[in-house]
Amino acid sequence: MSEKLIEHFKKYVAIDTQHETEILNFFQPKTFSKKANLINENTYCKLNFFITEGCLRMFFVNQKGVEQTIQFAIENWWITDYFAFESQTKTEFTIQAVEATNVLAIDYQHQEELLGKFPQLERYFRLINQRAYAASLLRTKYLYDFSGEEIYQHFYENYPEFAKRIPQHLLASYLNMTPEYLSEIKKKLRS
Amino acid sequence: MSEKLIEHFKKYVAIDTQHETEILNFFQPKTFSKKANLINENTYCKLNFFITEGCLRMFFVNQKGVEQTIQFAIENWWITDYFAFESQTKTEFTIQAVEATNVLAIDYQHQEELLGKFPQLERYFRLINQRAYAASLLRTKYLYDFSGEEIYQHFYENYPEFAKRIPQHLLASYLNMTPEYLSEIKKKLRS
Repeated sequence: MSEKLIEHFKKYVAIDTQHETEILNFFQPKTFSKKANLINENTYCKLNFFITEGCLRMFFVNQKGVEQTIQFAIENWWITDYFAFESQTKTEFTIQAVEATNVLAIDYQHQEELLGKFPQLERYFRLINQRAYAASLLRTKYLYDFSGEEIYQHFYENYPEFAKRIPQHLLASYLNMTPEYLSEIKKKLRS
Repeated sequence: MSEKLIEHFKKYVAIDTQHETEILNFFQPKTFSKKANLINENTYCKLNFFITEGCLRMFFVNQKGVEQTIQFAIENWWITDYFAFESQTKTEFTIQAVEATNVLAIDYQHQEELLGKFPQLERYFRLINQRAYAASLLRTKYLYDFSGEEIYQHFYENYPEFAKRIPQHLLASYLNMTPEYLSEIKKKLRS
């Protein structure tokens, strides 16, 4: 599974074959069963996760006591609460497995060491973070401007693999609508 | 004004004094009067901006024809549409001066050259992007979960200098409320 990470690094930066094992040794492979929590709300967010197989979501419990999903991640994506990870503080979010999931996990100190030793990975993470930030700006735009139907349609067109793979009640939560409303929209778009 | 950028770099990474002029030569200083556009919606987004003095906002025109502000930036902040900047495509956003503003601007090719020549700046931009992304995740949480009053209170407590400095109709737009509603909230919180 670990080759996926090296392959992903190589999409953005050069990695000498002789350094691959040394790089991978900075990471711990971990397996989580469906619905297991990788990080719990109100605990220290010590790890950053690269998904080699499966699907994770990040959510918080809103003031009404309902789980609100704000992020999904599948293979080749990174996920953590970067604010809590970098400042080594408690997180406001929970990260949970949507499917049985394999990750490569790295803690803050090891990530810093890794970046010190292989500075080309600063570029890799700069580009990854930049894309994540750019996507979240666009998402804010859609949240402000799109109707529920438009948001779903846009999501479906841009991330068809997600829309099919993710349980509908979680997708509805991410799109900020009730499962009933999502089901109505889908019915309408099919007709 | 250019020293501000070097100082900001040095908060995150080491820069040799002898390289400062060479680094600054990658940037064009530009001055914009209040309400001037730095980047227009539906044009190529060629520049990334570091603000040395003033205040900018990023907005789009929503489906009702109303300007919706989604980002502000003041001194020592970077602003661009990273998606359009990196892919060298047209942007969905306008970047406009809220006050008379001085920036240091860099285009994509020069930024790549700069990063190639001074790779420690990859770390600087990695950290800047990571913080921007982390902040936008938290903002998404607030947009989902907070009432208008809570959003304003949170914004005021965390960014008091912004809340005082920014014209109230723009702040209302950013907080996704009408200026009248913002004015009511402020009256209520003062009483």
